[in-house]
Amino acid sequence: MNMRKVKIYGTGKYMPGRPVSDLEMDDRLGVARGWTRKVTDVASRHYAGEDDSASAMGAKAAQAALQAANLKFTDMDCLVGASGTKEQALPCSAAFIQRAMGMEQSGVPAFDIDSTCLSFLAALDAVSCMIAVGRYRYVLIVSSEIASVGLDWSHKESAALFGDGAAAVVVGPAEDVEPSAIVAASMRTYSAGACFSEIRAGGTKRHPNGFRPADADDYLFRMDGPAIYRMASRLLPDFTKELLQASRTGMADFKAVIPHQGSAMAVRLMRKKLGIAERQLVYITPDHGNTIAASLPMGLHEAIRTKRIARGDRVLLIGTAAGLTLGGLVLDY
Amino acid sequence: MNMRKVKIYGTGKYMPGRPVSDLEMDDRLGVARGWTRKVTDVASRHYAGEDDSASAMGAKAAQAALQAANLKFTDMDCLVGASGTKEQALPCSAAFIQRAMGMEQSGVPAFDIDSTCLSFLAALDAVSCMIAVGRYRYVLIVSSEIASVGLDWSHKESAALFGDGAAAVVVGPAEDVEPSAIVAASMRTYSAGACFSEIRAGGTKRHPNGFRPADADDYLFRMDGPAIYRMASRLLPDFTKELLQASRTGMADFKAVIPHQGSAMAVRLMRKKLGIAERQLVYITPDHGNTIAASLPMGLHEAIRTKRIARGDRVLLIGTAAGLTLGGLVLDY
Repeated sequence: MNMRKVKIYGTGKYMPGRPVSDLEMDDRLGVARGWTRKVTDVASRHYAGEDDSASAMGAKAAQAALQAANLKFTDMDCLVGASGTKEQALPCSAAFIQRAMGMEQSGVPAFDIDSTCLSFLAALDAVSCMIAVGRYRYVLIVSSEIASVGLDWSHKESAALFGDGAAAVVVGPAEDVEPSAIVAASMRTYSAGACFSEIRAGGTKRHPNGFRPADADDYLFRMDGPAIYRMASRLLPDFTKELLQASRTGMADFKAVIPHQGSAMAVRLMRKKLGIAERQLVYITPDHGNTIAASLPMGLHEAIRTKRIARGDRVLLIGTAAGLTLGGLVLDY
Repeated sequence: MNMRKVKIYGTGKYMPGRPVSDLEMDDRLGVARGWTRKVTDVASRHYAGEDDSASAMGAKAAQAALQAANLKFTDMDCLVGASGTKEQALPCSAAFIQRAMGMEQSGVPAFDIDSTCLSFLAALDAVSCMIAVGRYRYVLIVSSEIASVGLDWSHKESAALFGDGAAAVVVGPAEDVEPSAIVAASMRTYSAGACFSEIRAGGTKRHPNGFRPADADDYLFRMDGPAIYRMASRLLPDFTKELLQASRTGMADFKAVIPHQGSAMAVRLMRKKLGIAERQLVYITPDHGNTIAASLPMGLHEAIRTKRIARGDRVLLIGTAAGLTLGGLVLDY
């Protein structure tokens, strides 16, 4: 089971800029009014402004998480950046978040973990093991995403889906008498689907060094929704069954199920295929959109903030990411 | 101490393309013959060809590491990409390495850990904790770098320094009776130096979407060598002293010290400031150059291949990375 006595001490969220409504999006996309809402179920998403940086957004979410945890940055032993996008090609985004927090002389180790939309889950999984063996005590995990700069506006369904935002979580050890724990975690990557959602260029394979205006689209996010849907439909049920068996939990036992809000359709797929009840589902798509890796910690934050979960409640984080990766994590909050 | 009973099962290396000699580099840079060797001490580095991808290079190093470990990919529980560069902006590079190994249906979880030049060290640190708590058994860590596409040829000192290549390591649990362990690890990030080595653009802050030929240099690697040198000189001695104290080791006790080969000057600095003896130093700069995150596992691979270290020998991995991050890891091979 690999249960780890680790606890979520606090969470925080930051939404940049101003909300962009579904009607505004309809106009921007040049579609009939009502199209965006009908197709994506996103009523409002935020777009970072010219002055927003992912690190500044992450720093604000992190400060909120520290405040919720009643801890200070100086209590932290490590800062993990857990985003699907980077602020600069180099160095890692966590360093910029540390600097944006005014902690540039702190020495607190800062590195990134990237599993695209499941970066937060991958980071929580790894970090909880580091805490369990005593490598670190308190760790700040920050997911901050500016999706809006990389959207392909010619693909309306995809462009209408995404939003910008940041979320952060403070993790640390749980006492034996406390109910909190990471109960089980599982990830599976099937790179047969690596190109189902991707940004083809921007790395060493097609470096911006060789940028040609004709290839500008290759620097934008592209997804094959139906292909992801088919692959996820096929793989998610057994994947989830194994995770639930490993954690000796039935789906009905979860107080809350927090899916990655890839799209309204993806959430519906998970509900149906995995038998998630309406009362369990944490659904933040309508006022957030898909915020890439910030989506899962935002869902966790909202579940805590709205008191849908209390200490000791069993929670399931689950979703798919580009890769194609499936991820799930069972935690007792 | 957080000792983890974890063992290096096997290592592998892959150098792409053909070696580029110091004299060839002199000509390419338009400097006097002898300049490259004198300034960088790099006699030969490899540059990936048009047909080489970082994932294909990583796959070859990974196959070599599996062979050395006498294990198969299907024995692996996880694949961690540990590079400072990415193959594509999205998804993570580990997914592409999985695919390049022909294992696209394996489901083996694949994600990236990024701490620029210290990505391998950060990955080994995190992964060893995951193995110690039983989250994973065998993990393949792969660092694969194509530095050559992002070099700024107008900065000759920096351009002459880098090389392409890949290295991989298979890690897994050590029995109690075996001498192998990760004894201690430490990382410190001082983001006051975040801009001392960087690629300014290519992320969400300056997206290739807004590419302007006049800003092409911002997509290239840029370093302020003297600033890094000053900061590292000031911080490395105390950093190393603490790590050695935590592992109850004196510098003289290491059979081998494997520094990140950032530059000949950086290695000299470490030798001098940390009191590393000639017989301990694993110095691969002359025939590799700075291969970013592949540098440390290449050094480890070479130390094992040339039988400079044997089972149970205590080894120090140490270096600095963009961030600015200091990292050190004490392992009993």
